[in-house]
Amino acid sequence: MPAVNPERVRSRVVILGAGFAGITAAQRLGKLKVDVTIIDRKNHHTFQPLLYQVALAVLSPGDIAQPIRSILKKNRNTEVVMDSVKEIDTAERRVLLESGAVMFYDYLIVATGSTHSYFGKDQWAQIAPGLKTIEDATNIRRRVLLAFELAERQMLETGTHPALRFVVIGGGPTGVELAGAISDISKLYMTKDFRHIDTKTAEVVILEGGPQVLGMYPPNLQKKAVEQLNALGVTVRCGARVTDIQPGYVMVGEEKIESVCTLWAAGVQASSLGKMLGVELDKKGCVMVNEHLNPKNLPEVFVCGDLAHFEQDGKQVPGVAQPAMQMGDYAAKRIGLLVADSDKGARQKGFRYFDKGDMATIGRKAAVARIVWPFHADWSGVMAWMTWMMVHIFFLIGFRNRYSVFLSWAYTYIRREDGVRLIVGSQDLPGWDTLAPPVGPVTD
Amino acid sequence: MPAVNPERVRSRVVILGAGFAGITAAQRLGKLKVDVTIIDRKNHHTFQPLLYQVALAVLSPGDIAQPIRSILKKNRNTEVVMDSVKEIDTAERRVLLESGAVMFYDYLIVATGSTHSYFGKDQWAQIAPGLKTIEDATNIRRRVLLAFELAERQMLETGTHPALRFVVIGGGPTGVELAGAISDISKLYMTKDFRHIDTKTAEVVILEGGPQVLGMYPPNLQKKAVEQLNALGVTVRCGARVTDIQPGYVMVGEEKIESVCTLWAAGVQASSLGKMLGVELDKKGCVMVNEHLNPKNLPEVFVCGDLAHFEQDGKQVPGVAQPAMQMGDYAAKRIGLLVADSDKGARQKGFRYFDKGDMATIGRKAAVARIVWPFHADWSGVMAWMTWMMVHIFFLIGFRNRYSVFLSWAYTYIRREDGVRLIVGSQDLPGWDTLAPPVGPVTD
Repeated sequence: MPAVNPERVRSRVVILGAGFAGITAAQRLGKLKVDVTIIDRKNHHTFQPLLYQVALAVLSPGDIAQPIRSILKKNRNTEVVMDSVKEIDTAERRVLLESGAVMFYDYLIVATGSTHSYFGKDQWAQIAPGLKTIEDATNIRRRVLLAFELAERQMLETGTHPALRFVVIGGGPTGVELAGAISDISKLYMTKDFRHIDTKTAEVVILEGGPQVLGMYPPNLQKKAVEQLNALGVTVRCGARVTDIQPGYVMVGEEKIESVCTLWAAGVQASSLGKMLGVELDKKGCVMVNEHLNPKNLPEVFVCGDLAHFEQDGKQVPGVAQPAMQMGDYAAKRIGLLVADSDKGARQKGFRYFDKGDMATIGRKAAVARIVWPFHADWSGVMAWMTWMMVHIFFLIGFRNRYSVFLSWAYTYIRREDGVRLIVGSQDLPGWDTLAPPVGPVTD
Repeated sequence: MPAVNPERVRSRVVILGAGFAGITAAQRLGKLKVDVTIIDRKNHHTFQPLLYQVALAVLSPGDIAQPIRSILKKNRNTEVVMDSVKEIDTAERRVLLESGAVMFYDYLIVATGSTHSYFGKDQWAQIAPGLKTIEDATNIRRRVLLAFELAERQMLETGTHPALRFVVIGGGPTGVELAGAISDISKLYMTKDFRHIDTKTAEVVILEGGPQVLGMYPPNLQKKAVEQLNALGVTVRCGARVTDIQPGYVMVGEEKIESVCTLWAAGVQASSLGKMLGVELDKKGCVMVNEHLNPKNLPEVFVCGDLAHFEQDGKQVPGVAQPAMQMGDYAAKRIGLLVADSDKGARQKGFRYFDKGDMATIGRKAAVARIVWPFHADWSGVMAWMTWMMVHIFFLIGFRNRYSVFLSWAYTYIRREDGVRLIVGSQDLPGWDTLAPPVGPVTD
């Protein structure tokens, strides 16, 4: 064991982004003899896999988000800075922040993830919000709940209301989860709330441009997913390319699909910080990294999580939580080796994604699970759903939240009760015409 | 027992406002043979006495707010309409809503409460927000937490930061609670969160225009309150009339008091719906009501809660939760009597406020309680604080919330842990100069 030299200037690690990759890296680095600075625009880490449950009023924001400072408060070598990055200078090894501060680094971990992509139609964002942040989730919640409120009010005034059709664009995990959850709340949880409308008449439509929903899953699970979605009353339309989105409707080619609330789960693009590194990017803007997660010629820079384009066995590792956490862990471990003894670092094996499987929940007691570890299995239905629940409770960061989420779920799922259907933010009671467009993101 | 005549057209009761008075009235009317419509701009009832705990990140919005529909869903005779009132026509007995709908009533309960008053200086609202709604609470939370974040960042950049002085204007119960809670979070809960600033150096100043804080309380409790506030490190300045509020400072006469975050707890005014009734108002805009809570010559209209000016033993009943609930209950009961048998209604005694006492919490283990029922006592300190906790948990509407609040408190108070210090809404990282003014209310 090498003696600790108190005179030695400790290496400084700067982490950009406090998602799964950044937080995991920070947690491991907290135990090493380095100084760590983690920088994020938000003051909290968000447990993204459960964000759709905040959007659909099953959980509260506080259940799935935790201040970064709280998560890392025991790491006395770590400072948290709430700021945005303006520029990265890899030659001088420094990061310039929006506030004007300059952070020098010996090692840099870039883990700023991805954001929505509207494929160049950015005006769609106001009409069909996506789901990446707590603010997005409360925005979607407001729109979904207001759609029911407006229908009730219109029924009262005119004796009729537009069809309660919710359109979800994109049939990946997020789209499937959102669609299933809207169906759940309208068919199970809200039925007793209204006197004039029948919430069970709500329709949910998934418009998927590709040939299948859940493209990453094996065909048998894709089929099971569609069956379960249909059982929940969700219509799945594959090969449906959206050509326009307007308040109140969506165009698929020449076909006009009326929609009281349209949600976007179709595309992501890499965070713009990738560009700042001045290295090779793929067409989604992800940074091409080598076996050590370094961009070419930058061995002191690590790119982790959704922002990294890492290929394994000829396939890109997917942009989900598990690989992000593993990458964050790898980068931190490697920094530890390089700092302690560069020789060991040189001998370290490259990163390898250990795939335990994938899960997507569809609704109450409905999910699909492709399990790779600790055994191989393709599950669907109740078993998959229970596995999903247990895994997600287990991985929730922080005991307090885990406990609270468990209680909320117990209530909501078992008793089919309540949830937290608060409409917060603009309550200025728009009409149908104004509901979709400028209610806007809550990020006022 | 009179036979129920199924042919009889049932009376319609319209309730405006779903605060304590409106919800209590609705709950009692739910058991009677009338049709009830309750109208509110928001979709939820807010448990206002705990709002300051949402503002200071101890509780989540979902802990203290519940959808009106959820609270009343078992009352099959009750409909909930989310809308605003445009006009009340007492001659035609109808209410015109913003959406254009018209609601006819046989009995009307007006319980729309009160709002902030900036004494004509409405421009102060942007700089020194008040606390009435969930949106106000998250807005205040954001400002308080951002003040610490900005100090940390500035310390990092320049090695110094402005004094973390929080100014609370108004020394009533809300002002005292806010001040005590800011002191608590900065001195107990946040100390481990930051690396560069010492959150314990935060100062909290209460500026009270009158001669005492907690004007409604007996002098011995006022004195105890000041002692407890001082023990928490809160400076109390009575007779301090605020003459101007600007971003970054407050003027008291010629004295300039710098402030990184200014909160308003100084004045309330009655809801503007009082004016729509075309009856006599007091100087705060409250509706003068008779012994049956009716405005003059309108026996089918009841005004309850903060909006009512009701005098008992020569004193106006205060605008707090207890009288509001009792008024709502009285109005509902009276409507029941009038509908069933107008003779009994004629003989009914007038409303009388049954004063059980008042409590104001100051901080962790600190409170004052003026207990009138079931025995007379003036308590302060831990005993008062525990009483306050028990009473508030008991009165929280809905078991789910009560349980969740209890858990959150147990964590926060006993373990001095976490809370939910999420900054939600604008995270655009303003500087000091822009923090105070246009971050604006979350009601975007």
